[in-house]
Amino acid sequence: MPVWIDGRPADTLPVSDRGLAYGDGLFETIAVRQGRIALLERHMQRLAEGARRLVLPLDLALVRSELLAFAGELRQGVAKLIVTRGDGQRGYAPPVDARCRRILSGGPVPAYPPRHRLDGIRLFPCATRLAEQPLLAGLKHLNRLEQVLARSEWQDPACAEGLMRDHNGRPIEGVFSNLFLVRDGELLTPALTRCGVAGVMRAEILERAVAAGVACRVVDLDYADLLAADEVFLCNSQYGIWPVVAFETHVWPVGGLTRKLQLMLTDLVDV
Amino acid sequence: MPVWIDGRPADTLPVSDRGLAYGDGLFETIAVRQGRIALLERHMQRLAEGARRLVLPLDLALVRSELLAFAGELRQGVAKLIVTRGDGQRGYAPPVDARCRRILSGGPVPAYPPRHRLDGIRLFPCATRLAEQPLLAGLKHLNRLEQVLARSEWQDPACAEGLMRDHNGRPIEGVFSNLFLVRDGELLTPALTRCGVAGVMRAEILERAVAAGVACRVVDLDYADLLAADEVFLCNSQYGIWPVVAFETHVWPVGGLTRKLQLMLTDLVDV
Ligand SMILES: Cc1ncc(COP(=O)(O)O)c(C=O)c1O
Ligand SMILES: Cc1ncc(COP(=O)(O)O)c(C=O)c1O
Repeated sequence: MPVWIDGRPADTLPVSDRGLAYGDGLFETIAVRQGRIALLERHMQRLAEGARRLVLPLDLALVRSELLAFAGELRQGVAKLIVTRGDGQRGYAPPVDARCRRILSGGPVPAYPPRHRLDGIRLFPCATRLAEQPLLAGLKHLNRLEQVLARSEWQDPACAEGLMRDHNGRPIEGVFSNLFLVRDGELLTPALTRCGVAGVMRAEILERAVAAGVACRVVDLDYADLLAADEVFLCNSQYGIWPVVAFETHVWPVGGLTRKLQLMLTDLVDV
Repeated sequence: MPVWIDGRPADTLPVSDRGLAYGDGLFETIAVRQGRIALLERHMQRLAEGARRLVLPLDLALVRSELLAFAGELRQGVAKLIVTRGDGQRGYAPPVDARCRRILSGGPVPAYPPRHRLDGIRLFPCATRLAEQPLLAGLKHLNRLEQVLARSEWQDPACAEGLMRDHNGRPIEGVFSNLFLVRDGELLTPALTRCGVAGVMRAEILERAVAAGVACRVVDLDYADLLAADEVFLCNSQYGIWPVVAFETHVWPVGGLTRKLQLMLTDLVDV
């Protein structure tokens, strides 16, 4: 599998990289099919927003062209892009002459069991809460210890994903997915202004649902809203949509709107 | 300056390291003088606590022996230790067979102006708030974007440090230091159960102050407590103690207890 650093084959980086020292950077996990990049513009948009908020001097045109070339070589699988603030001396202060490092590594198409999307999954109730940090909310930055802790909470393969809540107990997202509910025909997904990663698949689903005439709302959801939902599903850029059919003592059917949205996305990641 | 990885000279690491991918690891910044390590046991203790809470399979005896050997080679300066969960495949789940990577890099003694400890410093009021995450509070882990953002808020060299508060506005620490107040002869420092890094110098100061008969309390402080303090100072393992003499429109004298504590620490980092 190919690995590139700053556009050239290489698979090691200096220990002075600020991505390692402080998690000072961003990442994207990108589906590549037949050499083409799914949701390229959305990945670029989230990167641009992240670079703006972290004040990373990232050459977005260069990132795009490297991504396209990398996808051409990878053909099929996952392209993981990491951008960091590059090398730094001691200390948190960003170097005035920072030069971002761009790391691309290829992996195979993730081998999730087809039953996850066909029959739905059981959701694990993570005890790890997401801290509220509006300055970082929505970004796919490299500070991901909360996800590491949450994913460590269960080994049981019967649970394919875990629910993460904020410190007020509000459901926010999955450990590596975003969360949607359907209630009275309306599509609801948690606001990600205080915590959570604003997924590219979440954005795509919202746009396509609205275009299809579905009422959509981005809101603060309570735990009770989750339990009272008619349909629940998770999504990300790699697997598309997984219906949630079990959570603690609750069960849901795979819902009609969930099924329709799954069908509306088959062009993206051949789910 | 020496750089070692896993005990051998090397200065690059694989892009698959989870320290880079997720900030999945810990660090220590350690003062080395005449080949000896200041506060070694406290650094080891914080590492042990971090490894326990992050469930890192870290060989602490090996870390200690590498640190001692590295300090012998460095002689004088800063030894920065980074430990990560080692290499990982895609995904947040810690590998069952994780092998921690240990990275040691040497730097010169930091060149802070002597007036910082002699005359005191002006403190910048950072707008970046510390998010509350009890599962990570106190640890010196690699997720440090909040400190990067906070340190980016000012360039004015008149401010040597910045104050970080939590989302309730409570003063917690400096960007790279811990915070102490003196009020009515009592030494107060914020509790670090929801956010902040539990510094080794903070622990050393508390222990020595108690031994010297000073009344000490670790408490939740309000912003008003800071403004009403008789003395304010910051500390860390590299510079010892900096008195705070100015913050916004407030001024403090360099206080008597602050001076006494500075004198009580001169054996550690020749401040
Ligand atoms: C924490 C978190 N939230 C949400 C998502 C979904 O994002 P995307 O749709 O961009 O894959 C991910 C993806 O890995 C994630 O790690
Ligand atoms: C965020 C933060 N708080 C506190 C400290 C002080 O810790 P120590 O006394 O261990 O140097 C540091 C040191 O760099 C730090 O980065």
